[in-house]
Amino acid sequence: MISNRQQVTDMIRAAKVSKDLRWVQVADAIGQSKEWTTAACLGQMTFTKQQAEIVGELFDLPDEAIAWLQIAPYKGSLPTDVPTDPLIYRLYELVSVYGTTIKELVHEEFGDGIMSAIDFSMDIQREEDAKGDRVNMVMSGKFLPYKTY
Amino acid sequence: MISNRQQVTDMIRAAKVSKDLRWVQVADAIGQSKEWTTAACLGQMTFTKQQAEIVGELFDLPDEAIAWLQIAPYKGSLPTDVPTDPLIYRLYELVSVYGTTIKELVHEEFGDGIMSAIDFSMDIQREEDAKGDRVNMVMSGKFLPYKTY
Amino acid sequence: MISNRQQVTDMIRAAKVSKDLRWVQVADAIGQSKEWTTAACLGQMTFTKQQAEIVGELFDLPDEAIAWLQIAPYKGSLPTDVPTDPLIYRLYELVSVYGTTIKELVHEEFGDGIMSAIDFSMDIQREEDAKGDRVNMVMSGKFLPYKTY
Amino acid sequence: MISNRQQVTDMIRAAKVSKDLRWVQVADAIGQSKEWTTAACLGQMTFTKQQAEIVGELFDLPDEAIAWLQIAPYKGSLPTDVPTDPLIYRLYELVSVYGTTIKELVHEEFGDGIMSAIDFSMDIQREEDAKGDRVNMVMSGKFLPYKTY
Amino acid sequence: MISNRQQVTDMIRAAKVSKDLRWVQVADAIGQSKEWTTAACLGQMTFTKQQAEIVGELFDLPDEAIAWLQIAPYKGSLPTDVPTDPLIYRLYELVSVYGTTIKELVHEEFGDGIMSAIDFSMDIQREEDAKGDRVNMVMSGKFLPYKTY
Amino acid sequence: MISNRQQVTDMIRAAKVSKDLRWVQVADAIGQSKEWTTAACLGQMTFTKQQAEIVGELFDLPDEAIAWLQIAPYKGSLPTDVPTDPLIYRLYELVSVYGTTIKELVHEEFGDGIMSAIDFSMDIQREEDAKGDRVNMVMSGKFLPYKTY
Amino acid sequence: MISNRQQVTDMIRAAKVSKDLRWVQVADAIGQSKEWTTAACLGQMTFTKQQAEIVGELFDLPDEAIAWLQIAPYKGSLPTDVPTDPLIYRLYELVSVYGTTIKELVHEEFGDGIMSAIDFSMDIQREEDAKGDRVNMVMSGKFLPYKTY
Amino acid sequence: MISNRQQVTDMIRAAKVSKDLRWVQVADAIGQSKEWTTAACLGQMTFTKQQAEIVGELFDLPDEAIAWLQIAPYKGSLPTDVPTDPLIYRLYELVSVYGTTIKELVHEEFGDGIMSAIDFSMDIQREEDAKGDRVNMVMSGKFLPYKTY
Amino acid sequence: MISNRQQVTDMIRAAKVSKDLRWVQVADAIGQSKEWTTAACLGQMTFTKQQAEIVGELFDLPDEAIAWLQIAPYKGSLPTDVPTDPLIYRLYELVSVYGTTIKELVHEEFGDGIMSAIDFSMDIQREEDAKGDRVNMVMSGKFLPYKTY
Amino acid sequence: MISNRQQVTDMIRAAKVSKDLRWVQVADAIGQSKEWTTAACLGQMTFTKQQAEIVGELFDLPDEAIAWLQIAPYKGSLPTDVPTDPLIYRLYELVSVYGTTIKELVHEEFGDGIMSAIDFSMDIQREEDAKGDRVNMVMSGKFLPYKTY
Repeated sequence: MISNRQQVTDMIRAAKVSKDLRWVQVADAIGQSKEWTTAACLGQMTFTKQQAEIVGELFDLPDEAIAWLQIAPYKGSLPTDVPTDPLIYRLYELVSVYGTTIKELVHEEFGDGIMSAIDFSMDIQREEDAKGDRVNMVMSGKFLPYKTY
Repeated sequence: MISNRQQVTDMIRAAKVSKDLRWVQVADAIGQSKEWTTAACLGQMTFTKQQAEIVGELFDLPDEAIAWLQIAPYKGSLPTDVPTDPLIYRLYELVSVYGTTIKELVHEEFGDGIMSAIDFSMDIQREEDAKGDRVNMVMSGKFLPYKTY
Repeated sequence: MISNRQQVTDMIRAAKVSKDLRWVQVADAIGQSKEWTTAACLGQMTFTKQQAEIVGELFDLPDEAIAWLQIAPYKGSLPTDVPTDPLIYRLYELVSVYGTTIKELVHEEFGDGIMSAIDFSMDIQREEDAKGDRVNMVMSGKFLPYKTY
Repeated sequence: MISNRQQVTDMIRAAKVSKDLRWVQVADAIGQSKEWTTAACLGQMTFTKQQAEIVGELFDLPDEAIAWLQIAPYKGSLPTDVPTDPLIYRLYELVSVYGTTIKELVHEEFGDGIMSAIDFSMDIQREEDAKGDRVNMVMSGKFLPYKTY
Repeated sequence: MISNRQQVTDMIRAAKVSKDLRWVQVADAIGQSKEWTTAACLGQMTFTKQQAEIVGELFDLPDEAIAWLQIAPYKGSLPTDVPTDPLIYRLYELVSVYGTTIKELVHEEFGDGIMSAIDFSMDIQREEDAKGDRVNMVMSGKFLPYKTY
Repeated sequence: MISNRQQVTDMIRAAKVSKDLRWVQVADAIGQSKEWTTAACLGQMTFTKQQAEIVGELFDLPDEAIAWLQIAPYKGSLPTDVPTDPLIYRLYELVSVYGTTIKELVHEEFGDGIMSAIDFSMDIQREEDAKGDRVNMVMSGKFLPYKTY
Repeated sequence: MISNRQQVTDMIRAAKVSKDLRWVQVADAIGQSKEWTTAACLGQMTFTKQQAEIVGELFDLPDEAIAWLQIAPYKGSLPTDVPTDPLIYRLYELVSVYGTTIKELVHEEFGDGIMSAIDFSMDIQREEDAKGDRVNMVMSGKFLPYKTY
Repeated sequence: MISNRQQVTDMIRAAKVSKDLRWVQVADAIGQSKEWTTAACLGQMTFTKQQAEIVGELFDLPDEAIAWLQIAPYKGSLPTDVPTDPLIYRLYELVSVYGTTIKELVHEEFGDGIMSAIDFSMDIQREEDAKGDRVNMVMSGKFLPYKTY
Repeated sequence: MISNRQQVTDMIRAAKVSKDLRWVQVADAIGQSKEWTTAACLGQMTFTKQQAEIVGELFDLPDEAIAWLQIAPYKGSLPTDVPTDPLIYRLYELVSVYGTTIKELVHEEFGDGIMSAIDFSMDIQREEDAKGDRVNMVMSGKFLPYKTY
Repeated sequence: MISNRQQVTDMIRAAKVSKDLRWVQVADAIGQSKEWTTAACLGQMTFTKQQAEIVGELFDLPDEAIAWLQIAPYKGSLPTDVPTDPLIYRLYELVSVYGTTIKELVHEEFGDGIMSAIDFSMDIQREEDAKGDRVNMVMSGKFLPYKTY
């Protein structure tokens, strides 16, 4: 009996290690970006029927799990409000240190509103650099102005 | 008596509104990016003596405040662990939803380690789009591998 | 020296009591709904220059305060994560009790995505009822589907 | 051995996915609104004997589970004080941003008291809109004035 | 400038000590119970104009404070979620120890619903007892059944 | 292997539903009030050997469970500091709204000290009322004065 | 205007330093133990009129402060749930490490109930020891058995 | 597979109830005080090989568990920061109410430093008293002065 | 099915006790320091294939576990924000008491930036001392200056 | 009126900036290490009379402040449980990632007990390194074994 998406994510994580798969292979198989595909496998996005079946085959999932992959999940991938993992904490630190800065600059450019986290895409690339390679993350979200009424 | 950087940030915020200055004007005046300059004015970075004096003149700050701008501040710009402001919350939500995804992809590409939040730069631009303009944020941080010993 | 919007909200609250104004009067004066107007006066929305001047006159605000009203504020109007005030707590209780229900029904109708809290409007009316009048709140938010990429 | 309602909710969630049922079908079967029915299936409301038997048949529940459906449950459907799921968070954000506004307007209209979350109903509809369909939520709760004594 | 009810409560507390008043005297003066009157003086209830004027006179309050007494306050009288004061903590402990018991017994008698904390009254009396006098608190709240719809 | 009282409470809850017992029946069987009996069954009080055997028979408990019922349990019946269940939350709300009031009135009557939550009893009754029946809770606790030394 | 006991504690702390008084001198002056006296000066206990006047004279307090000393204070002397000060933390650590032990041994000796923190006294002494002097704390609280009813 | 000390504590608790042992019997068997012995059985202290074998025999523990008893455990015996159990809460309340008092008196007698919670012993006794027997706890910890360097 | 690194850590901990291994033996076997090796075994670092196989052999781990040891883990080894274990708490206390001191001295010497916790090594040694042996911890982290841009 | 040590720390911080002093100068003046001296100036340690007078002269403190410097302070230098400042956070991260490792290695070497944070010293040095200079922190604390009794 599978009663939540987390159980499916656990199956995928276990299968990924024992089959030694890479996320980019999964992304290629379903024809989406590696960012969206990984988020979806980790329980944050909803697959179409066709995508879910491909994922199910790659990770040897039971039918019940494939059905769960097509249902909008309860999102949020971290166990604590302030993440303890150093890589993820650095992202949280950026929000803490630069949060008010980003707010000021977006408002200066666009007025009051937000950058959407739904109509959103992300691209992570290695940036070669003589002083040590860099992680390059591009985030793009639609600006949504506050509506008056 | 000024006993912490927050008091200087309050002075800058008040002067910015009453003088109707824009952050890009401040950035131009000190010759740094608008992202770094805004973060520094909001109490997250340390100015050089020369930069501090320019900032002090722009915002009519007393000498004591100008001295504080040259001292490494206690960083962290938000009043709560989980930010309440919708624009800043969306960034936090991205960490929550995509945090494990970014972790997986960075590790897949680089091995174990982190993206530095110190040897780091950020660029925020308006991206024109027929379906509604987008906020485009590029983050670039040096990859730091865990050292064995 | 005014260094944040909360100080302006405090001025408005004090003036509203001493002048015995009603929110609907303010809304009429600026030609917006009572819901948006009240939220804006309480520091959650951004006024245009013209609106800010009318509000400034109604509440006898200094020029500096009128300038702050035109700047996108740090939002969030409550002092604690779980509100203590009984009226506001009932709204929080509805999120707690009905949150998963609303999620299920919106996903069943629209697929994965959210109801926007930005492209959003609200209307609060008294609904006469023989067994005791009712509060009727209509909330309308644009559905934003998750984007794949 | 079933020792709490959550176990029954897990059974219903698992059966709903494997049988591919929709909440509106369940609502039709028991003759209540889709909002109340979904909340009840998710462990927030109490079924009558007759309703519980219908629900038990639809989801193939054991007798013990059907007995639990008729008992007032320990309510609250979310795992954290501040919800992490974006759809549910937006509702929480509305409480945070508009909470004081709703309080002011209800008090202006009705005096001191609250909107009941018990003598309450809700209706969620799709609102067609050329600029993108909207989620329309109507909440109706009896006003309860504070009693003096 | 008075911008919230807490400031009025502080004035009342200060005046009560310097004038050596008792709550029952205040209750007698406005013709309400000592329980409601004390709660109202401590910023939890709303006075009528006439009551506010009597209270204002008793505590030598300025007109602005008297106006605030007639406005529905943001309620909640304690500085922390779990109270530190031993007398108040014991009440919290009763909720913690007996909370599920009260829930069971109210549901056994009335079905699903709640005891109102709004249509509510309380009476505190000294109960003489040879083994040591007792505090006797009677709480009476209207039962509100959950509505189906 | 039973290693804590919670496991026994789970057995009792499961048996109560499948056997359709009422708390008052249990109370009658052991000759105590329904309030104390329910609290004891829910893991908050300690039974005597004789009471434990009666309870064990009513709920078909194994000998090991009957032994646990005679041991002082780790008390506290709620999963979170601020309860999410609406019925129990209303009690918490009363502590929040009326806490300082009760403190003032008890001190005015008795001086500094507390109402005991140990030398304590409670009685819950239905109070018939034309405008809707009421829940009537009487709490009686010995006053304990602070000792000087 | 003094509106809470904390303000009086601040006055006492300031005066104690500038006058270089010791707590035992205060205790001698009012004829109580140094433990009770210190707790009372730090805002945790209630003085009689005569004691308050002596304390007022020793610390040069205004009449208003002397009146506050005779009123039961809102108790709790620490700024955080888990104390940061190392000396006080060690006491908290003892509760954390030995809490279940003390519970077991008190119940083994007395049955279910508690050690009163109200009908309580404490004595702190230096215990000479060749390996380094020790702090010796004796705590004595009346055992209060749970009442059945 | 036993992977933490908590599992051993659960075994001991279960065996203690089913065998109806008393802590003092265990203490006698290993020749240590009842306080230290109970703390060690509840997972807070480390047994020697010989003690562990005696404890293992008394509670019928497997060899693996006996090995775990000889390993320094992760300490802390309570499930929440602020304990919910009334007996243990009273100890926490004493830290909250008397914490600053103890700090003042220890510093007045010894200067800056702490009472050790490691070089520490405790003795719990019944103190007969006509007005009701008392719990008498003696705590003795070495004073450790802060070192300058 | 192994779905996270914690399960592997549990296997290692269980095997270490039943086989009576010491961390230094493991460190010798893989040719790394005892500090890095222990951290890696406790789920905080990533092993190479060769190291993982040696560790797998030492602790009799299944192949699936050996695969997990080569994957970057979700880091953070403690169950609570403020650790309850006294040995680990002392480290936390040092951060609390000396945190601002270390910040001041590092900034005074190096300017604004941080000590890396990634390009970092640690060495723990026993320091013999007539007054009682000491724990000597040497921490060495690369200084990373904030970058301007 | 100075009523706590924080006010003195604020005076010292303000004077340090306006007089452009360095901590090492203060350390030299009182003849202690820069680590202890900085901690003491930041409100974490207690000065002798002679040291306090030197510090008072360096920072132009009033007599009242000099008296406060000689009193054991309420320790803890950080505003939140989890520090937001990146430099200090890295220390916290080390406790989180390496906490269990340090615990294991200290216990393996010394048996059960702790490293004292009181009988403790620290030395921070710049370590030159071709790949970038390093921060070198040496911590030395007396090992305190748990006592049996």
